[in-house]
Amino acid sequence: MKTYTRPADIENESMRIISAELKERGIEIPGNFEAVVKRVIHATADFEFAKTLTFVCGKCMDLHQKTIITDTNMALSGISKPSLQKLGCEAFCFMADPGVAAAAKENGTTRAVAAMEYAAERYPGAVFAVGNAPTALFKLAELMECGLRPALVIAVPVGFVNVVEGKEEILRACRKYEVPAIVARGRKGGSTVAAAILNALLYEAAGMLAPESRGW
Amino acid sequence: MKTYTRPADIENESMRIISAELKERGIEIPGNFEAVVKRVIHATADFEFAKTLTFVCGKCMDLHQKTIITDTNMALSGISKPSLQKLGCEAFCFMADPGVAAAAKENGTTRAVAAMEYAAERYPGAVFAVGNAPTALFKLAELMECGLRPALVIAVPVGFVNVVEGKEEILRACRKYEVPAIVARGRKGGSTVAAAILNALLYEAAGMLAPESRGW
Repeated sequence: MKTYTRPADIENESMRIISAELKERGIEIPGNFEAVVKRVIHATADFEFAKTLTFVCGKCMDLHQKTIITDTNMALSGISKPSLQKLGCEAFCFMADPGVAAAAKENGTTRAVAAMEYAAERYPGAVFAVGNAPTALFKLAELMECGLRPALVIAVPVGFVNVVEGKEEILRACRKYEVPAIVARGRKGGSTVAAAILNALLYEAAGMLAPESRGW
Repeated sequence: MKTYTRPADIENESMRIISAELKERGIEIPGNFEAVVKRVIHATADFEFAKTLTFVCGKCMDLHQKTIITDTNMALSGISKPSLQKLGCEAFCFMADPGVAAAAKENGTTRAVAAMEYAAERYPGAVFAVGNAPTALFKLAELMECGLRPALVIAVPVGFVNVVEGKEEILRACRKYEVPAIVARGRKGGSTVAAAILNALLYEAAGMLAPESRGW
């Protein structure tokens, strides 16, 4: 066994293996989606994402100066901080905000829904990355019917209840209003997938090739 | 479509679906491992983990009063904080520790290796949960040869380089020294899997059924 210890070497060798295995499986990814798809496979070792990841308006995904909203602190903590800084981005998760918890209780809804409303009011042109809560997707689709136009929606919750439906709903809304979106159709996804997609876009925008903040 | 909005209802319905689909696939999970396996499937929607999750000394996994070390801040942030508090546990990730970064640079190794050494010195009887860095597993196996006896090793990195080998190495060491372990053999795993395993054990020890902190 060859031992790799430098993060950049591990990264390069992983990407080489992923490219080779995609080819073996006869899967071709269009160039503009390649970085995202490969980084999701890198984060999951699951080639199914090459089939389920669905893109709407793939051209407008430059994250310079964007505000990023996540639905979990876990996804937030997985985002590359040096890239955010380099691009002048900021990133928030409002799930633990006391005002959000109170609003959820008052309206008899989930904290994820309340957090999306809270974020949409303050940062209507943000990137919304949802890796956990399908209810957040239904709320975002509803807000889009009322005029919300996010810069990008990343819709990749994982699970068995309302997940497939929530993703189809947001896909429909994003197509209707030509809002850029990356959706992992089906049951699979999660906070690591949300973070991987964001990092792929951030690395690309920042011209960073290796995950300087991963620290294998 | 029936709409579930209460986290506990979503949780229960998800677990019901997972149980039914495990049965359909003819997979039986021994009772003492069931909570862990189901929560990992819940966190990934991937039934492959029912086959790859491997347990060493499954009886001694009560997490009361334990210190938990993770190899990523992402896994740390995915752990249920109310459960930790209820059980008198504490949890740390030393990846961002300046001393760890300096040690890694000085010794020409990864931050993950340096973080494990740092943690093993201070908390030799901790639960070590590795969801990202195979190099951390090689280091833990080496430290076990020198006498380290963790309370539990959770070995679930994801990836294409050194990952399969690192998991086999720690499995061998844990079997040799009868150290309890939960290993996701193969390529798959990740920070969400590490957090799901910890939460399954924490909920069980704390007598908590629903993930009060997930906030769907």
